[in-house]
Amino acid sequence: MLGEKLENVRKTAPLIHNITNYVTANDCANILLACGASPTMADDAAEVEEITALSGALNINIGTLNAMVTGMFLAGKRANALGRPVVLDPVGAGASRLRTDTARRLIEAIRFTVIRGNISEIKTLASGSGTTKGVDADAADAVTEETLETAVAFVKAFAGKTGAVAAVTGAIDLVSDAERTFVIRNGRPLMGCVTGTGCMLSAMTAAYLAANPECPLEAAAAAVCAMGVCGEIAQERLRPEEGNATYRNRLIDAVYHLDAKTLEGRARYEIR
Amino acid sequence: MLGEKLENVRKTAPLIHNITNYVTANDCANILLACGASPTMADDAAEVEEITALSGALNINIGTLNAMVTGMFLAGKRANALGRPVVLDPVGAGASRLRTDTARRLIEAIRFTVIRGNISEIKTLASGSGTTKGVDADAADAVTEETLETAVAFVKAFAGKTGAVAAVTGAIDLVSDAERTFVIRNGRPLMGCVTGTGCMLSAMTAAYLAANPECPLEAAAAAVCAMGVCGEIAQERLRPEEGNATYRNRLIDAVYHLDAKTLEGRARYEIR
Amino acid sequence: MLGEKLENVRKTAPLIHNITNYVTANDCANILLACGASPTMADDAAEVEEITALSGALNINIGTLNAMVTGMFLAGKRANALGRPVVLDPVGAGASRLRTDTARRLIEAIRFTVIRGNISEIKTLASGSGTTKGVDADAADAVTEETLETAVAFVKAFAGKTGAVAAVTGAIDLVSDAERTFVIRNGRPLMGCVTGTGCMLSAMTAAYLAANPECPLEAAAAAVCAMGVCGEIAQERLRPEEGNATYRNRLIDAVYHLDAKTLEGRARYEIR
Repeated sequence: MLGEKLENVRKTAPLIHNITNYVTANDCANILLACGASPTMADDAAEVEEITALSGALNINIGTLNAMVTGMFLAGKRANALGRPVVLDPVGAGASRLRTDTARRLIEAIRFTVIRGNISEIKTLASGSGTTKGVDADAADAVTEETLETAVAFVKAFAGKTGAVAAVTGAIDLVSDAERTFVIRNGRPLMGCVTGTGCMLSAMTAAYLAANPECPLEAAAAAVCAMGVCGEIAQERLRPEEGNATYRNRLIDAVYHLDAKTLEGRARYEIR
Repeated sequence: MLGEKLENVRKTAPLIHNITNYVTANDCANILLACGASPTMADDAAEVEEITALSGALNINIGTLNAMVTGMFLAGKRANALGRPVVLDPVGAGASRLRTDTARRLIEAIRFTVIRGNISEIKTLASGSGTTKGVDADAADAVTEETLETAVAFVKAFAGKTGAVAAVTGAIDLVSDAERTFVIRNGRPLMGCVTGTGCMLSAMTAAYLAANPECPLEAAAAAVCAMGVCGEIAQERLRPEEGNATYRNRLIDAVYHLDAKTLEGRARYEIR
Repeated sequence: MLGEKLENVRKTAPLIHNITNYVTANDCANILLACGASPTMADDAAEVEEITALSGALNINIGTLNAMVTGMFLAGKRANALGRPVVLDPVGAGASRLRTDTARRLIEAIRFTVIRGNISEIKTLASGSGTTKGVDADAADAVTEETLETAVAFVKAFAGKTGAVAAVTGAIDLVSDAERTFVIRNGRPLMGCVTGTGCMLSAMTAAYLAANPECPLEAAAAAVCAMGVCGEIAQERLRPEEGNATYRNRLIDAVYHLDAKTLEGRARYEIR
């Protein structure tokens, strides 16, 4: 099932429009190319609607907001009007009022297909206040085997409330559409030592949605599994003296080589 | 001939002013350092004229336009007034009116030494309308052995009309000054899986122009050959498990080590 | 002594707020993660004060100024009010009036804990005029064994005048608080072929300051030694065909693995 989602990306090579932060834009573009999609980054309000209209999906990431917000609303509304999938990555929601408010205003104005963030960011969006520490999740919020049941219920409720598939990633990843929740146990802690693994996943999720528009839950789950599996493969290939910079490259390289069979064979998930 | 152009970059270490997109700015800076030049990125309208005045050449890339356009005009005009080479990379021309119009207005206002793009972008600039798919060329436009004669005539005409050397890169690269056209058959398809190889080439072209101001056609052809040769060397060094992220590094590494002899020995071109 | 400074970063994992250029922001984020800190990049004037308030230190880098200046002043003043360390990296001061004036206005308005730049940038700030060539130091300014005594006196005077620890990096690095000066002889020339090694060092210095707030001189000296030692380790691991792109990754990888014992054993400095 997941493997087919991956193959559809390679077959259709969707163009993905990213309005995203300048910190990780290059890695987002390269991971989109690695998975078989084609990236375009365009944040000027004067062109975002046209670029979205050309694209198979839109990825909005609030990692650096300066002068990008107007374009986010325009592009998101156009994507909705055209029925194109839209991903929101609410980077740092909870860390500043600007981020929290921008994310909440986006959710009010735009129908998102997937909202992907860490647990602290999603809790902030659910409750209106948060304890996000910068762009990383607060340890107190972490999804663990002990807190799993509560976390699944929370993510389901959030998906139900927003109408979006919620993808909450961390040590355990949860992807839910309010009825079914994928509980995913792939990935490696070292991914947290590479800036932008979340941003890259959001971009790749947009590619999986564009190539599999009829099943956003499965498409998002496949993207999350693919990222986790590639994090594992990348770590297996890391030599002892290599660190987080080389790991970033090996992660994208693994996405470049990932095939349906490997994804199917290595994905570890249950549906609740 | 080409090797001398490369050596002149290493000898003169020109400072290159880039007004370029945030997606690939880092790679552009590192490839400039790799080829022996010195990069400076400055897009604030309040300083671009001074920075251009300090620089050996100017590279204008419209990959992300937000708040950068005013500076592009100011810097370009200053470069013209000072007789410094100027490169235009019309990234995504044809994908939005903003990009098409900005590129065309730049060409009207500024005398470019080289305009480097993919075939769809250049066709857009020639005809005023385009079918650019995001930032990648449309397959229908591709320069192949079958369409070569027509493509050479088109590129010559474009160079004649704009007064710039036209560098159209793809599976076959064409570099023309209206009279002579370099038809270059270096490079590897994998280069299309790395974001910004075009941007990097435009930056490197500016370095070659700065170091070889008396022969822009040969300088641009040498830069295009150098990029293609390095794409080949990088692929030869790629291990089976490595993908597009590592390839990017090996490409820049190859530029770092490229010498005149290797460039001369591996460049595959004819002049039409 | 230096090793303890490094360990304090890993123990406290400080959040570092960076208002920094888009060219090297990704590398700055990854080197902060490598040394054990947590990066946040936020330059929107509407949020910088809140982000600074959450952070252990603030790093202001003027590498690309477009639309970032207002936020720099707001964040810097907030950091001062809260007693948080603040680093200034005056990238390209001397190359344009905008850069020189912005750096000088920042120094007048904000109490910096450390000002880190190359010798030409610091001379520009000291004298009000400069000969900075783009973002690289002018060869005529270089700190060598011959000019060392004069350079130490200059750096001490600059530290005394500004009240900041001055960190002037180049072939020989000087870190001074007006009374004592660390003369550091680590590092490799190849570091100059990687864009943003200075930016990365400034970001890492902010992390060392946040983790060692009571001794800014020693913290800054430890960060400078760590960067130089990692430059050496990275070069030892570089294979003959590898160049500046891979060197960048090996440099960050080395920071990821650096421990107190290695830093203590390899740091080469004297105090004058």
